[in-house]
Amino acid sequence: MNNFVFKSPTEFVFGRNAEQEAGRLSLRYGANKVLLLYGGRHAEESGLLSRVMGALEQCGIPIHLMGGIQPNPTDDKVYEGIARVRQHGIDFLLAVGGGSVIDTAKAIAAGALYEGDFWDFYAGVHPVERALPVGVVLTIPAAGSEASGNSVITKRDGLHKISLRTGDVLRPKFACMNPEITFSLPPFQTACGVADMMSHIMERYFSNTLNVDLTDRLCEAALQSIVLSARQVMADSHNYEARANLMWAGTVAHSGILGVGREEDWASHFMEHEVSAVYGVAHGAGLSVVQPAWLTWMTVHRPEKVAQFALRVWGVPERKDLRFVAVEGVRCLKQFFHEIGLPTTFRELGVEQPDVPLLVEKLHEDKGELIGNYVKLDRRATREIYEMCIS
Amino acid sequence: MNNFVFKSPTEFVFGRNAEQEAGRLSLRYGANKVLLLYGGRHAEESGLLSRVMGALEQCGIPIHLMGGIQPNPTDDKVYEGIARVRQHGIDFLLAVGGGSVIDTAKAIAAGALYEGDFWDFYAGVHPVERALPVGVVLTIPAAGSEASGNSVITKRDGLHKISLRTGDVLRPKFACMNPEITFSLPPFQTACGVADMMSHIMERYFSNTLNVDLTDRLCEAALQSIVLSARQVMADSHNYEARANLMWAGTVAHSGILGVGREEDWASHFMEHEVSAVYGVAHGAGLSVVQPAWLTWMTVHRPEKVAQFALRVWGVPERKDLRFVAVEGVRCLKQFFHEIGLPTTFRELGVEQPDVPLLVEKLHEDKGELIGNYVKLDRRATREIYEMCIS
Repeated sequence: MNNFVFKSPTEFVFGRNAEQEAGRLSLRYGANKVLLLYGGRHAEESGLLSRVMGALEQCGIPIHLMGGIQPNPTDDKVYEGIARVRQHGIDFLLAVGGGSVIDTAKAIAAGALYEGDFWDFYAGVHPVERALPVGVVLTIPAAGSEASGNSVITKRDGLHKISLRTGDVLRPKFACMNPEITFSLPPFQTACGVADMMSHIMERYFSNTLNVDLTDRLCEAALQSIVLSARQVMADSHNYEARANLMWAGTVAHSGILGVGREEDWASHFMEHEVSAVYGVAHGAGLSVVQPAWLTWMTVHRPEKVAQFALRVWGVPERKDLRFVAVEGVRCLKQFFHEIGLPTTFRELGVEQPDVPLLVEKLHEDKGELIGNYVKLDRRATREIYEMCIS
Repeated sequence: MNNFVFKSPTEFVFGRNAEQEAGRLSLRYGANKVLLLYGGRHAEESGLLSRVMGALEQCGIPIHLMGGIQPNPTDDKVYEGIARVRQHGIDFLLAVGGGSVIDTAKAIAAGALYEGDFWDFYAGVHPVERALPVGVVLTIPAAGSEASGNSVITKRDGLHKISLRTGDVLRPKFACMNPEITFSLPPFQTACGVADMMSHIMERYFSNTLNVDLTDRLCEAALQSIVLSARQVMADSHNYEARANLMWAGTVAHSGILGVGREEDWASHFMEHEVSAVYGVAHGAGLSVVQPAWLTWMTVHRPEKVAQFALRVWGVPERKDLRFVAVEGVRCLKQFFHEIGLPTTFRELGVEQPDVPLLVEKLHEDKGELIGNYVKLDRRATREIYEMCIS
């Protein structure tokens, strides 16, 4: 086990009517004037937006609204938000949405207090030293951004999707999580969230750090539970208990508790970021294509942990031939993704003619010559994995 | 799943040499003058105490020392600490030890800022509204007090062992956790810690709250990992990786993450507290007697979850007869406790003639007429369980 520091200071307020606490919590964490960020019609039509605004108004907090934040969020909304914050003297950002809205709020929170271009943070030119506080009302269990200090924004110029990882400075102060809000998520979007949270766990699980039995088993437990809850939710979108398990699993998956003391991988995420940046697909659907291809490549080059994943998460029967066991595990994962309506090939993703050389080029341009850790992937390896996504 | 709030703001600094961060961390969390609390010779002779003092001195922090805190800590040390804090203008408590030292530090931290008797907090007469900050250098993975806002102190007058549960106000600001410090723990003390952390998980696991699949599985994963690491540590006390897994498991077991959204039980802990208060035995050894007896009683009165525990934690083969499966699971747990040198009867615990009526009387006097939640235990039930501990 490697040395580590762990801290999870975000206050998670979980359960029915949790969004009604948004005003009280914003006050507690210092809000005087709030920029309330959201995505689109769903937040408006479901009545969520007005409930959250009501909760803020009850606490006497003035609100500025900024909607229209899209999946794979782009820098234009960040610049717009920074301008609004400065113009109106806003001191608190409340994200009502999923990862895209939260990540945009974090970028604004850091950018608004910085004289230079906010891209400096994402390019690693300047660390985020201070930021406005961010609160969350979560609507999509997927990205885990409510529990992390990270943010991913797409630069429209060149379509680069760039991640920023900070410690605590961008971690949300609170997250209101009401599983009922997720009843109306369409099956495909629910499934994309499932793929994203499973991938967040796998990025930690596939590690070169030996003797991390506790976190290995916690990862396996969380993966098994996500599979169970996802099946229940697909059978009944209004199953509160299954929605609740899934929503909390998305947070646990990315809060850091499953990755302590171990080297993490993140190759599948990085490879997917290029796919969704170039083709505008849903991140989760991109992952359900890329992650199994990455695993399949690993069954050839490093099957040990994939076999453990197969045995413990999918109940694949034990055999001497680790590679066979590993391949069976990947088959189970793909079958599960299909079962919940996710693609596992570029074609199923709607990308008929993927430009693999372009994806490889952008990937290594953005992330360096070697990608990931479980096996460090060079251009040849990432090309092979992208090619495995084709069919 | 029940509604819940979860927050884990303690900064855990984990790994080799972690204790060297104690000075820097104390400064960060506001220390100007520290009362350093510890147990006995071991902290002195191992060199740990002088290393921690060195770390504080390097940061220019004046130190007052207070040693001699015993297992099952008593109120005399709390009063002594409160007096020292007030006399010397101390503003930070650093506990170098296990649960007893940390719980004493918490009692002093709250008591020093309160005009009345600190027992008011433990009696539920007055809530803890403010407290001095507490830091921890952990030496025994067991109580999980480094991750909780709770404290247990024994009132010498009448030998009542009383728990206090707070939210964040008594939660340590940081905990330095170096697994190497635990190399020299004697096997019996290590085993007592194992029983304590397993019990912390079982107190959460055995719940009437249905549909908490994620936390159920996380609990099962943690229990399995503790069993594995405990066996490795018993075979080689200097196995760093196993010591590290065990140490972190003790924190995870009691940080709250395994109990979110569910009613918890705590009958076994309450029943044990009377045993260690009256007979002065180690809390963990008391638990390895009481918890299996509690489980055995449940195999008769409510076997379902005990059977799940047997199937998933101990790999007991599936059978139609749930009670049979449950009994097999309890047998596995007792066998494991024996294997690591723990008692499972009062006799093995060294209590030849337990006064069951006295234990029952004190238990219900301290905790009310009904104990626990999984099954609410009346005087007859707790007497039956104490009697099951005899042989």
